[in-house]
Amino acid sequence: MLDQLAGKKPLFTCVIGVTETAKIPGISAAGENPEITDYTPPADVELLQLGKCKCIPGVPVTPDGIPTPALITMSALKLADIATLVVSAGLKIKPYVPFVELGGCPGRDIRTGRALDNAEEVMNRARIGGENLSKTVDYLVIGESIPGGTTTALSVLLAMGVDAKGKVSSSMPLNPHELKIKTAEEALKAAGIKAGEFAHDPIKAVSTVGDPMQPALAGLVIGAAKNVPVIMAGGTQMAAVLAVVNASNPDVLDNVAVGTTRWIVDDKTADITGLIAEIADVPVLAADLDFSDSTFDGLKAYEAGVVKEGVGCGGASMSAMLKSNGKITKDVLLKEIENNYKQLVGST
Amino acid sequence: MLDQLAGKKPLFTCVIGVTETAKIPGISAAGENPEITDYTPPADVELLQLGKCKCIPGVPVTPDGIPTPALITMSALKLADIATLVVSAGLKIKPYVPFVELGGCPGRDIRTGRALDNAEEVMNRARIGGENLSKTVDYLVIGESIPGGTTTALSVLLAMGVDAKGKVSSSMPLNPHELKIKTAEEALKAAGIKAGEFAHDPIKAVSTVGDPMQPALAGLVIGAAKNVPVIMAGGTQMAAVLAVVNASNPDVLDNVAVGTTRWIVDDKTADITGLIAEIADVPVLAADLDFSDSTFDGLKAYEAGVVKEGVGCGGASMSAMLKSNGKITKDVLLKEIENNYKQLVGST
Repeated sequence: MLDQLAGKKPLFTCVIGVTETAKIPGISAAGENPEITDYTPPADVELLQLGKCKCIPGVPVTPDGIPTPALITMSALKLADIATLVVSAGLKIKPYVPFVELGGCPGRDIRTGRALDNAEEVMNRARIGGENLSKTVDYLVIGESIPGGTTTALSVLLAMGVDAKGKVSSSMPLNPHELKIKTAEEALKAAGIKAGEFAHDPIKAVSTVGDPMQPALAGLVIGAAKNVPVIMAGGTQMAAVLAVVNASNPDVLDNVAVGTTRWIVDDKTADITGLIAEIADVPVLAADLDFSDSTFDGLKAYEAGVVKEGVGCGGASMSAMLKSNGKITKDVLLKEIENNYKQLVGST
Repeated sequence: MLDQLAGKKPLFTCVIGVTETAKIPGISAAGENPEITDYTPPADVELLQLGKCKCIPGVPVTPDGIPTPALITMSALKLADIATLVVSAGLKIKPYVPFVELGGCPGRDIRTGRALDNAEEVMNRARIGGENLSKTVDYLVIGESIPGGTTTALSVLLAMGVDAKGKVSSSMPLNPHELKIKTAEEALKAAGIKAGEFAHDPIKAVSTVGDPMQPALAGLVIGAAKNVPVIMAGGTQMAAVLAVVNASNPDVLDNVAVGTTRWIVDDKTADITGLIAEIADVPVLAADLDFSDSTFDGLKAYEAGVVKEGVGCGGASMSAMLKSNGKITKDVLLKEIENNYKQLVGST
């Protein structure tokens, strides 16, 4: 697949959304505090399209001040001059950049057991969007930004019968598996369903215990992968999306790969390759990013397992390397990331 | 330019918006009655993306029951399998299809002299969108659907010093020039400006006496035409957009053409070629559509000067012929239009 994509023109799409699930203390590090996670996805895509955030000062950071992976994505897209299109799956705060509206709403806390209202409509509209985009691009790279997304991935995977406990990653070095499992189990209980009950009903799975990103991203994949290769750019959140695609349109999966970072694939607290293999036979590709020699502590932290993935940074890095036929190496990319880090975050 | 585009892959974009100006009795025939014109643009793009309307029953029609030109656009895009992306510039009713949101609002009646609130922001966002789209497509075709748009075109052209009185077309066979001129003059008066006062300030021109489609479409052109050819697909409304582009970024105009229908170019009640020539040296191309032999009265009416253009039907027809290297002729296209007419409108 990678050979086939070298030198070709991709479109990078980033699906953004929010879920109240991210407000549960300890679930998400995609924001300085849980309440501010509503701002993280719009701020991330503003960074991609404007080179700076508009809806918040500075850039999104973890509670420890480690900057958003959008910094990596932005650097990769800029270096390789890759077209970008933002897709909203359901937001509280709208970004100050153009975005595709699918009619979705912010997700409720999954512990209500009724996370989404119009998942099917959103998935259908996303499919139309994916179909149309696939007519002009060589391939599609689809990232995501939704705080709390690995917890909603876990609950959807459980609802669909995938043994995902202890296998989803976290943006924190200490993966809070117990909290995630407790939250997911409460969600299934509130929805009145048993694990595996929605194995063949992905719309019900995401509607009860999912998040808005999932049907939107799944719809884009289904619409586009009929015509062109699609890289699902993300970590273990993509396992839930893959489960949805697999239960709806498994025929498109020949044209699909998961593209992520080395930090996710090497994550000892999770198991992306095992998880994906349980769902479908699609390759898991990892961008070989290496920040160990960076002069910036906020980037070095990625090597210690902070953040790891998000905003499609692995897939974007990969496609920058591919589009440039290898001229953009991981060192070239790191230099660009450091330049942007210096300008946007500061000197340390 | 046409040689250059033959066999290439376009993206068809349709910019939709509404203005209260369309509610002035006698101004617009883009709806069964003035109040329903808010539904015409979303219904038009639903037709393009779904093959049927969702926000209204049937399809948009003139007060005499003549169907929307979206029927032509839809037929052309379908026959040639052309990618389509809807862009909202400011709507009251949202379509049930994916659309790019630019943060724009519906336009006020231009007789208030303060038509738009955030034209500059919308134009900037559209520019970002156009830039990104132009990185993956061979060329861009940009149509519009905004009832009342020739009147707001007239007022913007006057504000920018273009002698446009009696030169804009109408969707009605009897072009209501007097009413349009009276409305435009009232608009300029309310804004406290003289004709030509905003010749070098297109943002002020559209903000005071324009409509939301104008800055959105101009931004798309400016962003895209730096990289790829752009066909501005519409009638005399495009003159106003061209004036905005010309006053903002004239350097991109080498890559721009106006694409319309024979009905507009042959319109004895207007003068598109004269109007465009007054603004800038860009070609005016006309799709050679001919409905005189149609068995359907609602299509034959186009030959009598009803509707004439809209939803980029001229540019879409042209790009369908180009993409198919001439395999899609005007007869092939008419047959497809008639089939869709029969299915969507009925037998007569």
